[in-house]
Amino acid sequence: MTPNTNYRNLKDSYLFAGIAKKTRAYLDANPGAHLYRMGIGDVSLPLCGAVIEELHRAVDDQAQKSTFHGYMPEVGADFLREAIAAYYKTHGVTLSPDEVFVSSGASDELGDILDIFGRDKTVMIMEPAYPAYVDANIIAGNTVIRLAAGEENGFLPMPHEIPTEKYGAADIIYICSPNNPTGAVFSAAALKQWIDYANETDAVIIFDAAYEAFIEEDGIPHSIYELDGADTCAIEICSLSKTAGFTGTRCGYTVIPNALERGGMNFNRMWVRNRTTKTNGVSYIIQRGAAAVFTERGQKEIREAIAVYKQNAKVLMEALDAVNITYFGGKNAPYLWMKCPDNMGSWEFFDKLLNQIQVVGTPGEGFGACGEGYFRFSTFGSPEDTAEAAKRLKMLLG
Amino acid sequence: MTPNTNYRNLKDSYLFAGIAKKTRAYLDANPGAHLYRMGIGDVSLPLCGAVIEELHRAVDDQAQKSTFHGYMPEVGADFLREAIAAYYKTHGVTLSPDEVFVSSGASDELGDILDIFGRDKTVMIMEPAYPAYVDANIIAGNTVIRLAAGEENGFLPMPHEIPTEKYGAADIIYICSPNNPTGAVFSAAALKQWIDYANETDAVIIFDAAYEAFIEEDGIPHSIYELDGADTCAIEICSLSKTAGFTGTRCGYTVIPNALERGGMNFNRMWVRNRTTKTNGVSYIIQRGAAAVFTERGQKEIREAIAVYKQNAKVLMEALDAVNITYFGGKNAPYLWMKCPDNMGSWEFFDKLLNQIQVVGTPGEGFGACGEGYFRFSTFGSPEDTAEAAKRLKMLLG
Repeated sequence: MTPNTNYRNLKDSYLFAGIAKKTRAYLDANPGAHLYRMGIGDVSLPLCGAVIEELHRAVDDQAQKSTFHGYMPEVGADFLREAIAAYYKTHGVTLSPDEVFVSSGASDELGDILDIFGRDKTVMIMEPAYPAYVDANIIAGNTVIRLAAGEENGFLPMPHEIPTEKYGAADIIYICSPNNPTGAVFSAAALKQWIDYANETDAVIIFDAAYEAFIEEDGIPHSIYELDGADTCAIEICSLSKTAGFTGTRCGYTVIPNALERGGMNFNRMWVRNRTTKTNGVSYIIQRGAAAVFTERGQKEIREAIAVYKQNAKVLMEALDAVNITYFGGKNAPYLWMKCPDNMGSWEFFDKLLNQIQVVGTPGEGFGACGEGYFRFSTFGSPEDTAEAAKRLKMLLG
Repeated sequence: MTPNTNYRNLKDSYLFAGIAKKTRAYLDANPGAHLYRMGIGDVSLPLCGAVIEELHRAVDDQAQKSTFHGYMPEVGADFLREAIAAYYKTHGVTLSPDEVFVSSGASDELGDILDIFGRDKTVMIMEPAYPAYVDANIIAGNTVIRLAAGEENGFLPMPHEIPTEKYGAADIIYICSPNNPTGAVFSAAALKQWIDYANETDAVIIFDAAYEAFIEEDGIPHSIYELDGADTCAIEICSLSKTAGFTGTRCGYTVIPNALERGGMNFNRMWVRNRTTKTNGVSYIIQRGAAAVFTERGQKEIREAIAVYKQNAKVLMEALDAVNITYFGGKNAPYLWMKCPDNMGSWEFFDKLLNQIQVVGTPGEGFGACGEGYFRFSTFGSPEDTAEAAKRLKMLLG
């Protein structure tokens, strides 16, 4: 028996595993060294008080027979689906709670969702991109069309750039806005072009909105459903990881509109069938904690945490400005995407920062070939570490 | 674009959804009626003290910057992988912690694991079976060979019964022991025949050991790895759902031995790659709670809960004995598998119990065609409800 040979087509090492290996080696060689970690994009602030209190309450529920919760609805608890639908309302988007699916997080959904598309699909991915987009599609045996984002298109590729003569139309189009890793954001007008294109070509957009809470400028959609026509062509995948510090607590949500159909099949119904077959839902305790994020107190508290990360972004931007380094992002996204100085390769620059100033970032090449020569900083570190890293960057690059 | 048309081959309604619909309809027509639920197999006892305390401690960890946990290892936290490996040791099985993968539960893994097998596989499923085995394989487009378990083979089909002339050898063989729904258990000698068969034919066994904690007789393997040769042919999928009441809290584990290879590909490495691509691991809080299950106190407390369910089984068995109903299971498994009286169909018997004595069970037909004429009782209800249901069954069937 031959297992899934698509695994052989994956590159040897996943980006963040590679970073972990190099930093481990540095620490082995330099015991006790302090590293300024702005690589993997993990948050540093604890969960907010509203979430913590609700998590404790939910644990108590599980301790008593009268309040104990067994199997949860596979698609998510009503209380959380309703809270998420109400949150969308604040962005002017009306959803029925049954269009909202509670998940263990965006990374889980971005791969799992491919199951409803079936085999031999053509998938368009704007690179540089979150590596799991590409890897999940390689495992699924799909054909990946890479659409390069760069300075020439403001890191925002548009439909007319798709090399359709070579591949035909794409079945699936991944869009991440605010973008990881470049920090670029699609305006409403630009996103609308993608929506129209998808509806015309029968494609489905997988819209990764994991960073929507970091948007500060007006006129940038937080949800693709703010725009007409999205409900017939888009699935939106969100996460509380960065919004509310859930990277290690795990909860997210996926929106599949009831109007989304292809080939006479309804995607919402298919995903209900998928979830009821393949999961038993997300932990009651975690769903209770997630629901607290959407309360008035929860929203206030997560905004305070996001403000800390935004201040980190400012500190880093000022440092890069001071030494005349070209960079993108930072304003509506928690990432800075800088050009490596002196035409250095991105892994070369990674090694330089690690070895000379103990700063850990992410080599742009890890997000796709067109990311070579760029470098990503996460703004999720502690203010103290970020300030020190900014100082060191200024000294090294000045 | 045409999505995954395999979804069209699924039966309309998932078994437990069908039960839920019928019971809802009954309650709508009879407001305030109390139902004796022995259908879906959800637990009724709360989490044990050891788990609750550890969950609270873990929530507190997430409230402070100094103890906060962000991204967890995708394959599971070391502390939990080591605790599970140590638990296997108590059954005489030596595992390396890196052969243990922490999961959100068995139902999640039973479907997801198919990803490493790839396309167009032939899958052997002993029926009656947990419906998700079949449905997940239909979604994947695999060919399902159904091997009937019945009174004639003691509900334990053996390799020589496989209709190989029709389908060729199976690539994947599902074995659930103790069995859901029949309660049948494979002896070491019988299971060894399946191991030898799988190794000879290059198949892989997916061994569902979700109910191992309910085994009370000696000589019945708790883990397939108690037997020689299993490490080169078997994946074992376990869950804390029934063992420790985690149906709504969600945690399980999957064992993939380092020695398991097919077609020159190593399944453990493939699953590491799958998890690192498609998940960000299980919640830190939940993993801490799960680890408490494997402490001395945790083991003592979960044994007390299992004893309650075993007492329920006794009460039900005595009732069925008293009215001369033929049944199986109950001893080493938390399920009773009874023959419907008077040649009734299993949904007909379902309706009769619901309408006449307000007892909800599971129609055997929902576990596959050969389950027609049988009926499953779960023993996870409260002792009070189980006693009353037993009394009503005796009255109705006596």
